[in-house]
Amino acid sequence: MFRLSLPSRNVRHQFTGIPRQISGRITRSQQSSYRSYTSSSSSSKSSSSSYRSYGLTVLISSTTAVILSQLWTQRNLVQCDAFQVKTASDRSKAYVSPDDSQSQSQGEQVIPSSAKPEYASEEEVKKVIEILKSKFNEDQVTINPDELLSHGVSANTYHAAALPNVVVYVETTEDVSAVMKVANQYRVPVTPLSGGTSLEGHITCPYGGICVDLSRMDKMLELHEEDADAVVQAGCQWEAINEELKERGLNMFFPLDPGPSACIGGMMATGCSGTNAVRYGTAKGEWFLNATVVLPNGEIIKTRQRSRKSSAGYDLTKLFIGAEGTLGIVTEATIRLAPILPTRVAVCGFPGVEEAVSAVGEVINRGVPMQCVELCDTLMMEAISRFGNVSMPLPSLDTIFFKFQGSDPASIQASIKIVNEIAKKHGGQDLVFAKNDMESNELWSARKSAHWSAMALVEGGTCYSTDVCVPASNLPKLVKQTKEDLKQNGIVGPILGHVGDGNFHCALIFDAKIPGEFEKVDAAAHRMVKRAIALQGTCTGEHGVGIGKREYLPLELGEGTVAVMKQLKNTLDPKGIMNPGKLNHSTTAVPGLGLTCSNESHYPDH
Amino acid sequence: MFRLSLPSRNVRHQFTGIPRQISGRITRSQQSSYRSYTSSSSSSKSSSSSYRSYGLTVLISSTTAVILSQLWTQRNLVQCDAFQVKTASDRSKAYVSPDDSQSQSQGEQVIPSSAKPEYASEEEVKKVIEILKSKFNEDQVTINPDELLSHGVSANTYHAAALPNVVVYVETTEDVSAVMKVANQYRVPVTPLSGGTSLEGHITCPYGGICVDLSRMDKMLELHEEDADAVVQAGCQWEAINEELKERGLNMFFPLDPGPSACIGGMMATGCSGTNAVRYGTAKGEWFLNATVVLPNGEIIKTRQRSRKSSAGYDLTKLFIGAEGTLGIVTEATIRLAPILPTRVAVCGFPGVEEAVSAVGEVINRGVPMQCVELCDTLMMEAISRFGNVSMPLPSLDTIFFKFQGSDPASIQASIKIVNEIAKKHGGQDLVFAKNDMESNELWSARKSAHWSAMALVEGGTCYSTDVCVPASNLPKLVKQTKEDLKQNGIVGPILGHVGDGNFHCALIFDAKIPGEFEKVDAAAHRMVKRAIALQGTCTGEHGVGIGKREYLPLELGEGTVAVMKQLKNTLDPKGIMNPGKLNHSTTAVPGLGLTCSNESHYPDH
Repeated sequence: MFRLSLPSRNVRHQFTGIPRQISGRITRSQQSSYRSYTSSSSSSKSSSSSYRSYGLTVLISSTTAVILSQLWTQRNLVQCDAFQVKTASDRSKAYVSPDDSQSQSQGEQVIPSSAKPEYASEEEVKKVIEILKSKFNEDQVTINPDELLSHGVSANTYHAAALPNVVVYVETTEDVSAVMKVANQYRVPVTPLSGGTSLEGHITCPYGGICVDLSRMDKMLELHEEDADAVVQAGCQWEAINEELKERGLNMFFPLDPGPSACIGGMMATGCSGTNAVRYGTAKGEWFLNATVVLPNGEIIKTRQRSRKSSAGYDLTKLFIGAEGTLGIVTEATIRLAPILPTRVAVCGFPGVEEAVSAVGEVINRGVPMQCVELCDTLMMEAISRFGNVSMPLPSLDTIFFKFQGSDPASIQASIKIVNEIAKKHGGQDLVFAKNDMESNELWSARKSAHWSAMALVEGGTCYSTDVCVPASNLPKLVKQTKEDLKQNGIVGPILGHVGDGNFHCALIFDAKIPGEFEKVDAAAHRMVKRAIALQGTCTGEHGVGIGKREYLPLELGEGTVAVMKQLKNTLDPKGIMNPGKLNHSTTAVPGLGLTCSNESHYPDH
Repeated sequence: MFRLSLPSRNVRHQFTGIPRQISGRITRSQQSSYRSYTSSSSSSKSSSSSYRSYGLTVLISSTTAVILSQLWTQRNLVQCDAFQVKTASDRSKAYVSPDDSQSQSQGEQVIPSSAKPEYASEEEVKKVIEILKSKFNEDQVTINPDELLSHGVSANTYHAAALPNVVVYVETTEDVSAVMKVANQYRVPVTPLSGGTSLEGHITCPYGGICVDLSRMDKMLELHEEDADAVVQAGCQWEAINEELKERGLNMFFPLDPGPSACIGGMMATGCSGTNAVRYGTAKGEWFLNATVVLPNGEIIKTRQRSRKSSAGYDLTKLFIGAEGTLGIVTEATIRLAPILPTRVAVCGFPGVEEAVSAVGEVINRGVPMQCVELCDTLMMEAISRFGNVSMPLPSLDTIFFKFQGSDPASIQASIKIVNEIAKKHGGQDLVFAKNDMESNELWSARKSAHWSAMALVEGGTCYSTDVCVPASNLPKLVKQTKEDLKQNGIVGPILGHVGDGNFHCALIFDAKIPGEFEKVDAAAHRMVKRAIALQGTCTGEHGVGIGKREYLPLELGEGTVAVMKQLKNTLDPKGIMNPGKLNHSTTAVPGLGLTCSNESHYPDH
């Protein structure tokens, strides 16, 4: 077993978010890691620092820091293999997911032999690093092992991980273009990274190569108030954008709200959504008016101008949304903004998930204006009640969190009346309202931080998170089957879902130190995915494919559809250098792979 | 000059719509032309027939029929060249747009030589027709010249037109696949056609070949009320879908509302929108959950399952939306439905377009729930007042038509109060409300039929219709420049616009019998497009590229972006057989072109 000590290294932000109410401080580093927080020692017990993101100071306690470092350590029990790799074939083995053999045999059937990449040799990779050093400022190119580690390994997933050979902190679209030109010339794999909050292993570097870190490209370049749009760089966090709009005095926001700290680049890459999707749709809707993209050969294109509508040719913006960085690197985008409307938050307990889902369906089909409609099952409500720091009493039932929205209080009142009637009809209790803004924030914050509460259900517990999505009418069936499965296998798995969209997350809580526990929850997650696909659903509602869901594409979409995706990949990225090993790309053995991880001495434990 | 007599042939539905209040009848033909209306003689003066579309009976007068046949005749003064074609090079000449030389020189720069298709010889085309006849029922394959004419030529546009060699009325996805397999084998061009309401020449067949007519694929295959979605075939008209939902007693509708009679296939192909787009977005949003597509080689794929959200791989649904049938033929789609909400219609006059647009921007940025926000300029209001059959008094000013929306009357009342305040602030008059549903329908119908009123402004007038879209803040500037241009050139050009989206249509009214008039309005339209592009806008907001806007793609998007589109085209359609000559496809000389138009004897006049 490999145990990672944490000598002044960065721990990546957790997808699950940091409860604001916990006291303590995290800092934004001046250098590379403004999305990360720094701890001064491996134990982190007394670390104290501050984190600033566009004026927002987020406070967390030293207790939380301890939990984080524990998580980090535990997760590397699973991820450690990647650091023991010495050869290409070792790496290939380390990289494949736990249900290795099945995945590989399925994968090979649909991968045309021409898609097997032949990457740069070790010597060539070394040469490329020298070229990059000559082209960029000193602080932009690093082979520091700590940096390589924090860029190749994510604390958010249990997928096996591997490191890049070099990290380049790009600052402009032209920087990205310069990197891609060199990478293209020498056939060096490139993995783009913005917020790094992916749950499906998007940021790992199975073939080594260059990590293009976009976190310094965090500027709002233009703001057009009258047109309700803004031009932003790919490294902008969505919360930071909303904070910036607030600071500038605008009553507008960008409504896509995936995990905390996610950035525009990754949000586009995964086709993200979040709790607001029931009202505003997803990244695949019309929130991105255009994208500036660096193609695999280094060429820069812009997919569209800035008008709200256009039917001028193929929708290239949409081609790059959901492409997970496998076709090019998005560096800038024009985003649409929405007016911030008054909201009111309430919860409503139901006798079961089926009743809750039926009520939600009726609310939505009646056209009641709702910004969010979120389900937490009984177990999740128990976790929130115990650990969620909510002062108001919550139902110990399958519960819907409603965020009502309206342009004025009268509209909201009218909506509440309708929802109360519908809830009653489906056996729901009376709606319980937050009495004021503070209670609303507290309640919503508790929902947003539900994963943290869930983890506290199991002593020393950590969370294996996955999502699926089915037509809403099939959701009760899927939830029922999943709950039975978890019960039979003795797994603690509270559920929360963007139920208006038929999308739900299962937080599989387990103690990673107990042998066999990971394998047990992993197998349960895979069964859930297969059930969702059988119910006309998808293996991934909003997290993307990455390496975690790759094997399910043929089952879900059919081999013909996956073949078209591969054709597009091979056309736009003929050398296979863009984020290889993800989405629809082979991870089978690669000749001539250049691996120059020289970080053993820094990690004596392994 | 070529004059077309109309011996029992079909006149295609006008994009501009048929005012319901005019008396008379149009029939839905039992056979191929349910989207067309039949006239019994060339003069059509006393034609009387009935048109049924899913229970909707639309009535038009014999007066209107006269106008239609006049239009048809006038338009062919421009389109006639296509019928005088005898050779491939003739056809190539006939096909290019009036500003021929400029278009060609621009086009050639960005067309890779590999994109030049080599199609089937005349003999091979004949053989293919025999194969199709052997594979399909007798009533599914036709080379009847009347049918070829009504499929290759559109009464909606002034673009030069050309005919297919054969029309196949497909009835299933497998039919489409069978056609494509033969076409692919023999390299025969295929042009798909559903509603045929395109304004940009999408349905014309510059290289002859097969027209795949999808109008018999007009079924709703599945309806999932609880999930608010339906599976429909590509030949379904959007009005027919909404009528069907009403007949089934559902309080839901499909909110994309382009021109009357448009069908799902073409709506996806052009990335359509309409008056509801300000509230519901466009076809490029999330109204199509998936598509069943026949690829150029005849293979059938489905882009996604039916869940509302998915981030499983490249967004292939979106790749085919806006592809104008150049990458494959969509045969089925799952569409999302929205609840029908109470609405209220009002108009508000403003001192100028700038004030009107500013007021609309503020209304939208305040988040007031609006289903539609439509601008008609002073000239258009004059036309509607004189010819629009509206009983209530209308402002003779630049006017906004508001369709308020809310889940209950109280919400609407609250919205009205806010909009009244905003309108006042921008110099608007008091809102004038329709008093009841009848007046609301009358008013909205007048707006929807504005093109017809506009045409009446010029004696013997016909309409050259085009649209552009710019960021809303640039709209007043564009409208001002356009109005000055039209004034200087003595062109009658009333404006109406989906102003909430910065999208507007200019109806250039002219008498096609006067030499030079067409060229004058055509040149003005091209200047407007260039102005829109210079103002960060697009050459086409919702009509697509077709042959009409093809030359503007490099100017608007840059050559690199267009080159990516061409790469996608060449990858998915390596033989260039899918709807050739449209969007980004070359129309330069083609060797080995098979042309077998044998319709001369039926049209003795030319």
